[in-house]
Amino acid sequence: MAVDGTDENSLEQGIHTKDAGRLRRDGRHRRSQSELKCGVRLTHFHRLLVSLVGADWIFLMILGFIMAVISFVMDIFVTLFTDAHRWIYDLSDSHVFLQYFAWVAYSMILMCFAAGFANIVSPQAVGSGIPEMKTSLRGVVLQEYLTLRTLVSKVISLTCTLGSELPVGKEGPFVHIGSMCAALLCKFMSLFSGIYKNEARNKEMLTVGCAVGIGCCFASPIGGVLFSMEVTSMFFVTPNYWRGFLSATFGSLIFRLLPVWHHEEETLTALYATKYRLDFPFDLQELPAFAAMGIVCGFGGAFFVYLYGKITLFVKKQKATNSFLMKNCFLYSALVSVLISTLTFPPGFGQFMAGKLTQRDSLISFFDNRTWSNHGIIADFDNDDHLAAWKHPQANVFIILTIFVIMKFWMSALSITLPIPCGSFVPIFVIGAAFGRLVGEGMATLFPEGINTDGHIYPIVPGAYAVVGAAALTAGVTHTMSTGVIMMELTGQIGHILPILISVILANMVSQSLQPSIYDTVIRIKKLPYLPLLRWGHREKHNIHVEDFMERDVRYITLKSTYRDVYRILRSGDLKTLPLVKSAESMLLLGSVEHAQLQALLKQRAQELREGHTPSMTTSYRVHFQTSTEESSSASDHPASPKPLKPALKKAAVDEEEITNPYDSGISLKKLCCSQPDIDALQDYPDTEDDTILQEMEEWEEQELDEQVNFNNCKIDPAPFQLVEGTSLHKTHTMFSVLNLDYAYVTSVGRLIGVVSLKELSKAIEGSMPADGVRLRPILASFRDRGIKGTRIETAELHKLLDHQAS
Amino acid sequence: MAVDGTDENSLEQGIHTKDAGRLRRDGRHRRSQSELKCGVRLTHFHRLLVSLVGADWIFLMILGFIMAVISFVMDIFVTLFTDAHRWIYDLSDSHVFLQYFAWVAYSMILMCFAAGFANIVSPQAVGSGIPEMKTSLRGVVLQEYLTLRTLVSKVISLTCTLGSELPVGKEGPFVHIGSMCAALLCKFMSLFSGIYKNEARNKEMLTVGCAVGIGCCFASPIGGVLFSMEVTSMFFVTPNYWRGFLSATFGSLIFRLLPVWHHEEETLTALYATKYRLDFPFDLQELPAFAAMGIVCGFGGAFFVYLYGKITLFVKKQKATNSFLMKNCFLYSALVSVLISTLTFPPGFGQFMAGKLTQRDSLISFFDNRTWSNHGIIADFDNDDHLAAWKHPQANVFIILTIFVIMKFWMSALSITLPIPCGSFVPIFVIGAAFGRLVGEGMATLFPEGINTDGHIYPIVPGAYAVVGAAALTAGVTHTMSTGVIMMELTGQIGHILPILISVILANMVSQSLQPSIYDTVIRIKKLPYLPLLRWGHREKHNIHVEDFMERDVRYITLKSTYRDVYRILRSGDLKTLPLVKSAESMLLLGSVEHAQLQALLKQRAQELREGHTPSMTTSYRVHFQTSTEESSSASDHPASPKPLKPALKKAAVDEEEITNPYDSGISLKKLCCSQPDIDALQDYPDTEDDTILQEMEEWEEQELDEQVNFNNCKIDPAPFQLVEGTSLHKTHTMFSVLNLDYAYVTSVGRLIGVVSLKELSKAIEGSMPADGVRLRPILASFRDRGIKGTRIETAELHKLLDHQAS
Repeated sequence: MAVDGTDENSLEQGIHTKDAGRLRRDGRHRRSQSELKCGVRLTHFHRLLVSLVGADWIFLMILGFIMAVISFVMDIFVTLFTDAHRWIYDLSDSHVFLQYFAWVAYSMILMCFAAGFANIVSPQAVGSGIPEMKTSLRGVVLQEYLTLRTLVSKVISLTCTLGSELPVGKEGPFVHIGSMCAALLCKFMSLFSGIYKNEARNKEMLTVGCAVGIGCCFASPIGGVLFSMEVTSMFFVTPNYWRGFLSATFGSLIFRLLPVWHHEEETLTALYATKYRLDFPFDLQELPAFAAMGIVCGFGGAFFVYLYGKITLFVKKQKATNSFLMKNCFLYSALVSVLISTLTFPPGFGQFMAGKLTQRDSLISFFDNRTWSNHGIIADFDNDDHLAAWKHPQANVFIILTIFVIMKFWMSALSITLPIPCGSFVPIFVIGAAFGRLVGEGMATLFPEGINTDGHIYPIVPGAYAVVGAAALTAGVTHTMSTGVIMMELTGQIGHILPILISVILANMVSQSLQPSIYDTVIRIKKLPYLPLLRWGHREKHNIHVEDFMERDVRYITLKSTYRDVYRILRSGDLKTLPLVKSAESMLLLGSVEHAQLQALLKQRAQELREGHTPSMTTSYRVHFQTSTEESSSASDHPASPKPLKPALKKAAVDEEEITNPYDSGISLKKLCCSQPDIDALQDYPDTEDDTILQEMEEWEEQELDEQVNFNNCKIDPAPFQLVEGTSLHKTHTMFSVLNLDYAYVTSVGRLIGVVSLKELSKAIEGSMPADGVRLRPILASFRDRGIKGTRIETAELHKLLDHQAS
Repeated sequence: MAVDGTDENSLEQGIHTKDAGRLRRDGRHRRSQSELKCGVRLTHFHRLLVSLVGADWIFLMILGFIMAVISFVMDIFVTLFTDAHRWIYDLSDSHVFLQYFAWVAYSMILMCFAAGFANIVSPQAVGSGIPEMKTSLRGVVLQEYLTLRTLVSKVISLTCTLGSELPVGKEGPFVHIGSMCAALLCKFMSLFSGIYKNEARNKEMLTVGCAVGIGCCFASPIGGVLFSMEVTSMFFVTPNYWRGFLSATFGSLIFRLLPVWHHEEETLTALYATKYRLDFPFDLQELPAFAAMGIVCGFGGAFFVYLYGKITLFVKKQKATNSFLMKNCFLYSALVSVLISTLTFPPGFGQFMAGKLTQRDSLISFFDNRTWSNHGIIADFDNDDHLAAWKHPQANVFIILTIFVIMKFWMSALSITLPIPCGSFVPIFVIGAAFGRLVGEGMATLFPEGINTDGHIYPIVPGAYAVVGAAALTAGVTHTMSTGVIMMELTGQIGHILPILISVILANMVSQSLQPSIYDTVIRIKKLPYLPLLRWGHREKHNIHVEDFMERDVRYITLKSTYRDVYRILRSGDLKTLPLVKSAESMLLLGSVEHAQLQALLKQRAQELREGHTPSMTTSYRVHFQTSTEESSSASDHPASPKPLKPALKKAAVDEEEITNPYDSGISLKKLCCSQPDIDALQDYPDTEDDTILQEMEEWEEQELDEQVNFNNCKIDPAPFQLVEGTSLHKTHTMFSVLNLDYAYVTSVGRLIGVVSLKELSKAIEGSMPADGVRLRPILASFRDRGIKGTRIETAELHKLLDHQAS
C-alpha cells in the first residue's frame, strides 16, 4: 500500500501500462482471465484509494472532523471539571473555611497538574501558540513544535487549565492544536500518498489547521478563516482560501452536530445564540455611543498589552535573579491560582464580581436580551442563576460590573503569563462584554424609553452593547478586524453589523497606534524571528530605499578565495549563506553558497590531504611535497617521509562546532583537521626526523591553505534573491513577506554592494530596538509624538537612517 | 498649496527649520512678531492639512462616501425609471397593443440610449468590469480604463440599463466604478500630497475601490471585502485588509444612512432584511436538501457559464461575418431588449413568470418568510402586490417558479453579452433565489408540519431555501465563497450560516471542476492577459518543474553584440525585454535590457553618425571615414566631402514603428536612420561625386553596423527575475502571481538556459489552448475525463509537456 516514490501519477501510469501489457500477453490464456479481472479490479481499487487519500477535500474533512471532536470532548471535560468544582463547593458548605479550602485547593491542584504536565511532557505546549504559528508559517521551523507529544501535552494540560477556572481561553491553543493535527495528519497520510511529501502543500495545510482551530472553538467558520489569516499570515493566497473554508465549515458543522446527537440541543444554532429584535436592531442615535465604546476599547486593548508585557518582563527578571521560581514552575502557577481563586471565592470578594459564574455563564448573562437595571436597581428575574449572580443587596449592578471589569482585567493579564497553555481571546471577550453591558445598562438607565421619538418605543438593548464591547476590546488586543465576524457567528445575529464594524475599526485604529498586538508582543518577548508590519503612521517609510538601510559591509567569497579566506570568514560569524563574487575587484555576484557547503569543502579538503598519503595521493600534494623536500637541506631523499605525517593527521573528523569556535590567531590545516595534535601517536615514531618533517608539513600546510578553493563540488545557489539599491522599503517588505526571505543581496549592475537581512529591515521599519528585543512603548507615547514633535522625531529617525548609510 | 515635491517629510522639516531660523533672526524686531506668529500658525495649518490629506483614513472615508452617494443616487434613478415604466404601462391600459407598445418601447429606448451612450462616450465602460479589474490589478494597465470619461459613461449608461429592466446587475460595474473613483481620487489628492504619487499605494487603493464598490452595492462590507479579494487578486496583503474594511464599512454606513435621512426607512437594517425565526432556524434533517441544492446549483452555475460563452462566441462569429450587426451596436441591444420585454409583457407570457415584478421586488418576495403554497395552491395574502404576481388561476406556484427559472436563465445569459455595462451577479442571485423558493415550497408541501417529530412543530421556511439557493448559484457562477457572506449581510440574518456555507462549498466544488468562472471566461474571450489558477484537480502539477515547460530558444544579446545583431533581434519579435549575457559561449546572464532602451541605442548611434559630420565629429568615425576615402581612388582630398552626406542623413528621426516594421533583407544604417532617402535634398547637389561617396558611405555604414554595441548609456536591469531549472510549477506560479511577473529567466549556475513567460506558464497549467484563446469545456467534460481515462489523459498531457522539453 505504501507508495514511497514521490510521483503518484507516474506510478499510476506505470501500473496502467503494465496492466495493458499483461492484458495483451495473457490474452490467449483463458484460464487466467478471471484472475486478471480480479487484478485489474484490485488495481482500480488501489488507484481509487490513492486518489481519494490524495484528494484535498478528504484530508480537509478529516481534519475538520478531528478538530470538532477534540473541541467537543474538551468542552465536555471542562464542564465536568467546573461542575465538580461547584459540587465540592456546595458539599462543604457546613463551614466557610472548609468551603474556601475546597474552592481554592481544587483550582490549585488542577493548575499545578496542568503546569506540571505541560512542562514535563512537552514545554512547547506552553503559551498561546499563535505567535509561534506565526513564526512557523513565516518559514522558521520551531523544533518539536508540531509533534504528537506536544499535541497530547497541550490538549490535556489545556483541559485542566480551563477546568481550574482561571481566566484564560482555548482559542490560541486551538490554533496550535489545529496546526499540530494538520501536520500529524499530513505525516500519516504520506504513508498512503506521495502528494503529502510536498512541502508547500503541507505548509498550506498548516494554515488550514489554524483556521479550523478557531472555527471549531467558536463554531465560526468564516471568522475562523479570517482570524487565522489576519493573525498568522502576512500574505494570503486567495486560491487556497476554499481549503480553510471547507475544513472550518465541516469542523463547525460537526462541532455543532455533536451536541444535537448528544441530545443536549435541539438543532444547529450559534454557540451563544441571542434573540435581539430584528425589525429595529438599534437606533441611529446610538451610533455615537458605539463609536465611543470602540475608542475606549482601543485604549483598553493597548493598556492590556502594555500590562501583559510589564508583568512578563517583571516575572522574567524575577526568574533570572531568583532561580527558585524558575525551577518550580508549579510554585508560580500555584501562587497565581490561589490569589485568583481567593478573590473569586463567592462568599468572599467574589460576591462583588459574580465569582460563582464560569466564563461561559458570564458571557451568556452579558448577551441576555433583557435589561438588568431599572434605574440602577437590578430587576427581578425568577430562577435565573446566571442573572442572580449580578444581584447584590449592598451594591448596584454598575458597581458590580465595574469591579468585574477591573478585577478580570489584571487577572487575565496575569493568567496568560503563566507557564500553561492559555489563550487571551476569551478572557478579553468576557471583559469586553462586561464593559459593553455596563455601558448598555447606563444607556438604558439614561433613556428608559429608547431614544427614538417617532411614536414607536424601542427600548435600548444592553445585550447588544455587550456584543459590540466584546468585539471591540478583542479587536483592540489582537489588532484584527475579524473579531467582529466571529462575534456575529457566535451570537447568530448580524443585525448589529455596522455598530460592531465601526467600533472594531476604531478600536484597531487607536490600539494599533499605541501598542503592538498581543501576539507581536509575545513574539518580541520570546525573541522569535519576525518581520514587523508596515501599518498606520508608516506612511513616511515610502521614501526610504534599500540603499538607506542595507548592510554595506558584506562578507563574501570570491572565485579566487583561498581555503584560508574561507576559513577566516566561517570563523568570523554565523551567517547561513555567503555570497560568491567573481573577484574582489569586479564584485560580480555569481551566486550564494551555504555555510554548511563551505564547511563540507574544508572537511573534504582535509580528507583529501589525509588520503594523499595513501597510494592514491593527489598529484598536487605530491608535487608540492617534493618541491618542499628538495628545498629543505637535510633528510629528504628516502621514501619513508610520508609515514610520520599519517598519525599527525589521523583525527581528521572536524566537527562543525570546532570550526565555528573562535580559534587562536595562528591557524594551520593541522589544527583544522585535528583540534588537538595527536601527541601519543607521534610518540610511537622515532623523533629523529620528525621535527623537521613536522615543520615542513606545517609550512606546506600553510601554503596549502593559500591554495584557491575548488568550487566544483560545491552546491552554489545561482539565483539568490537580489534587490536593486533603489528598491523602496515598501517593496522590499512585500518581497520579504511574500517570499519568506531571510536575506537578499543588493546589487548594482550585477555588482554586489550590500545585503539586507530581516534584522536590517526590521530596524528600518521600527527604528532602533533595544538589545533584548522588547520595546514596550509607554502608553500614550505615540500621542505625545504626534503633532510638531512627531514630525521632528520622524525626520530625525529618517536622518539617522540616512547617516547610517553615509557612515 | 500644491506640494509638487515628492518627499512630504523633508518638505515639512524644511519649513520647520526655516521657521526656527527665522525666529532667531527676527527675535529683535518686535513689530514683526505678530506677523511671524501668524506665519507659524499658517505653517502649522498647512502641515496639518497636508498630513490630513495624506492620511489613509481620510482618503478611505472620502472614497466610501462618494461610492455610497453614487450607489444611492443610482438606486433612486433606477426606481424612478421603473416606476415611470409601470406608470406608462398603467396609463395605456385602454388597449392591449398600445400597452404592449408602451411596455416594449420604453425598455428599448432606454436600452438603446444606454448602449449608444456607453459606446460613443467611452467603449471601456461596456461589460462587467471585474475581468478587466482583475487584469489591471495583475499589472497589465488597460488604456483609458480608469478615466473620468469612462466613469461618467459607465454610471449613466448603467442607470439606464437597470432602468430598462433587463435582467442585469450593478455589482460588476460597481467594482469598476469603485476603482475608477479610487484612481481619480488618488489623482486629485496628489495635487495636495506627494504620497499619492506612490504607485504601489495607488494600486492598493484600486483594490480598496473594488471592495467599496461591492460593499456599497449590497450594503455588505465584509462580503464586499472578501468578494473583491477573491475575484480580483491572487494574493492578498493581510496588513492592507483594514483599508478595505474601513472604506467599505463607512460606505455601507452612508449607503444605509441616506435612506434614513431621506425618511424612507426608520433605522439601519439590511437591504433585504428577513425575519426568520431565531430559536430553531432549520431542522437537522433539512441539511441533505440544502446540500443537494448546492450540488444542483453547481451544475447550474457551470451551465450558465457554458451558455454565456456559447452565446458570446456565436455573436462574435455573427459580427465577424455580418458587419451590419457590428456597426450597429444599437440593433443588437434593441433586438434583445424587444425579445425580453415581449416575453415579460405582463398580460402576455409575463403572467406565467411574474413579469410585472422588478428584480428587487422578486427578491423581496422570494425571501418572504411565509409559505406560499398550501398543497400546491398559493395561499391568500391580502393586498400584497409582490406575492399576488406569483398567483395564477391556471398554473400553480411550482409551474410559475419553474418557468421563471428557465426563462430568466437564458435571458440573463443573453443580456450580459450585450454591449452595455452589466453585471451578472444580481440576475444569477434572482434565479438562485427562485430555484431555492421552488425547492422550499416543495419541501413545505412534502412536510407540511415540519420534519421534526419531537413534539414541537417547526414548519419549513421556504424563504430560507431561497437564501441558500441564491448564495449557491452565485457561488457556482463566480467561483467564490464570499457569496455566502454577502447573502447573510444582505438578509441581515446569520442563522442559516451552516446550510449556506455547505451549499456554497458544494456548488464551488462542482462548478470549478466543470467550467472556469464567469470572469475567467470573459478574460479568455476578450483575450486579456491572465494567469490561470492552480485549483481542484491540479494536484499532479506539483511534479512539473520549470525545465519542463520553459522556452529554450531564448533570443539574447551579448556584450559583444554588434548593432546589426541588435537590429535583427529587435526586428524578429515584439519582446519587451531582452536578456544580456556575457558572451554566446559562456551565456552568463548579466541583466536585461528593455526593448525601448535598445531602440534608443540604435537611434543614438544614428544620431552620432549624423553629427559625426558636424565639427564635433567622433574620432572613430573620422578615422574610419579617412581610411575609406584613402582607399577610394578618386575625389578624396578636398574638404567638401562631409557636405553631401549631410542631407542624406538629414531625416534622422527614427520612429519606433519603423524599426519594428519588417524591413527588406538588405539593411544599412542609412535605412535605419531615414526610412526614405531624401532624394530631393540629394538633387540639390551636383551628381559628380555623390555616387561614389554614397557607395562608400553605405559600405562604411555596413561596417559601422558590425561594430560592437556600446552599452554604457544603456539602462540595464541588473536583477531580472531568475528561476532555477528545478523550481516547481507550483512555486513558479506563486512567484508570478505574487510579484506580478510577466517573464522570468531560467538560469543554471548563472548561465541563461531558458525563459518562462506568462504564455508558457499558462500552457503548463492548462495544457494546450486553441489559438483564439477561448476554451469552453463541453459540459460534463471533466466527469468524462475522470476515472481511468482521466489519469491517462493527465499523464498524456504530462508527457506532452516533457516531450516539449526534449524537442
